[in-house]
Amino acid sequence: MELSECSLNSATIRGSSLDDVLGLAVRYGFGGVGLWRDVLDDVDLVAARARTDGAGLRVTSVCRGGMFPQPTESLRRARLDDNRRAVDQTRMLGADCLVLVCGPPLAGDLDSARGRIREGIEHLVPYAVEAGVALAVEPFHPMLAATRSAITSLREAVRLVEIIGHPQVGLAVDSYHIWWETDLREQIIGAGDRILSVQLADWCTPIDDELTSRGMPGEGDIDMAGFVADCRSAGYSGLVEVEVLSSRWWSRPAEQTVAAAAAALGAIGNPLPSS
Amino acid sequence: MELSECSLNSATIRGSSLDDVLGLAVRYGFGGVGLWRDVLDDVDLVAARARTDGAGLRVTSVCRGGMFPQPTESLRRARLDDNRRAVDQTRMLGADCLVLVCGPPLAGDLDSARGRIREGIEHLVPYAVEAGVALAVEPFHPMLAATRSAITSLREAVRLVEIIGHPQVGLAVDSYHIWWETDLREQIIGAGDRILSVQLADWCTPIDDELTSRGMPGEGDIDMAGFVADCRSAGYSGLVEVEVLSSRWWSRPAEQTVAAAAAALGAIGNPLPSS
Repeated sequence: MELSECSLNSATIRGSSLDDVLGLAVRYGFGGVGLWRDVLDDVDLVAARARTDGAGLRVTSVCRGGMFPQPTESLRRARLDDNRRAVDQTRMLGADCLVLVCGPPLAGDLDSARGRIREGIEHLVPYAVEAGVALAVEPFHPMLAATRSAITSLREAVRLVEIIGHPQVGLAVDSYHIWWETDLREQIIGAGDRILSVQLADWCTPIDDELTSRGMPGEGDIDMAGFVADCRSAGYSGLVEVEVLSSRWWSRPAEQTVAAAAAALGAIGNPLPSS
Repeated sequence: MELSECSLNSATIRGSSLDDVLGLAVRYGFGGVGLWRDVLDDVDLVAARARTDGAGLRVTSVCRGGMFPQPTESLRRARLDDNRRAVDQTRMLGADCLVLVCGPPLAGDLDSARGRIREGIEHLVPYAVEAGVALAVEPFHPMLAATRSAITSLREAVRLVEIIGHPQVGLAVDSYHIWWETDLREQIIGAGDRILSVQLADWCTPIDDELTSRGMPGEGDIDMAGFVADCRSAGYSGLVEVEVLSSRWWSRPAEQTVAAAAAALGAIGNPLPSS
């Protein structure tokens, strides 16, 4: 892929400042950046927006909103407030979407968590609509069901988005989370224009931590060219993010990691929509 | 649960001999044992059968057959031969079923692997029928898609079993592998009398290896009483196995681990079919 079609997610170089993320994205020729909120702390977002616009960088995502299941009413309210702040940040940066990491179950009760997640998103929608911000539900790998999200498959995320039924609520699809699914290609194509964000990370074993064992595209088992081609076939025309949460890559200098990401994306080739 | 309703899987005390597994199962009052084939090496199976019968222990499963995707024709043939030996062992022990760990994809090609798995099972069926042995397809956690099995959900396993459409081909359901699935209860009940084996292990985080991070029932996030009750509601009337692959528990003396398993199963209570 051309790097101008790609976006550098800040979590790939966790610990770097916004300045560093933007500087490295420009230096390597990325078309955009995906930003986790840790890099937005104490940042003047108007100035940040001017910098990304000036550099010709699209902000493809802000991560994250969500974490809807909460044990008390006051925590639920606090979380909704935090989600509204995330919507504000997404709006001020002109980002393509706010990614929703929907949250794990309380005491293992997945069914209940799924209900709370739906309610939480429905609560957030009017505020997001007012702000003109799209919300992207990200299905998570079932390995993260107990710690990050009760939304454990693309199939389930599509169903949730269909039930909510609002044009500003769509999907973030990350190769790492869904590569194992049955009929993946058909599901991705079926998701069509609900796909608001496409992220890449590879599946590497052995797993030494369920969150941070990811690999650069090409390091693991996932057919990355096929995944991107399927997303293009579904109609996704935006930038493709590289988002590699990896204790291994985090231990290296950020520039080395970005160079590796650039090379990995280049090696995917130019996937054409598969027929 | 009463231990007479439960079966001790030998993998819970990996490294123990068949004698030790049977001795501990009897001492603690288990109704049966599940046997991995490593404990059957160099064992006289006629004598073993006499021992289990004499002790009143049911053999609930033999593990494993499967591993169908293979890169060459000669390896495929060798694997089919090995599967036939596993069927023979299952028959000689009078076990309830042979568990099929279906095998990971070659070079990440899940679709192709799923085709090879179906073909492999269909090849094995006539031999299993002749032997009077039931084959139990085990869906595996997606965390193990690259290393153990391309059959990554109960939904998919049920579909596979339905396509094969033979009364001697059913399912092995392990709480660890499928607890995260959407509509799990409905799926289990829908699987009905296709369920040939029920196994318990709990989901404990952080994951420090995708195969051996499991916990005793109650140590992790899974609603074990609900899982067993759903299997009973589906009509499963056999013994419930405790199969905990855990480097943590393996580091302890086998008797300590069996005592912990017995306590964990007792703590589940007596799950009634949920309404």
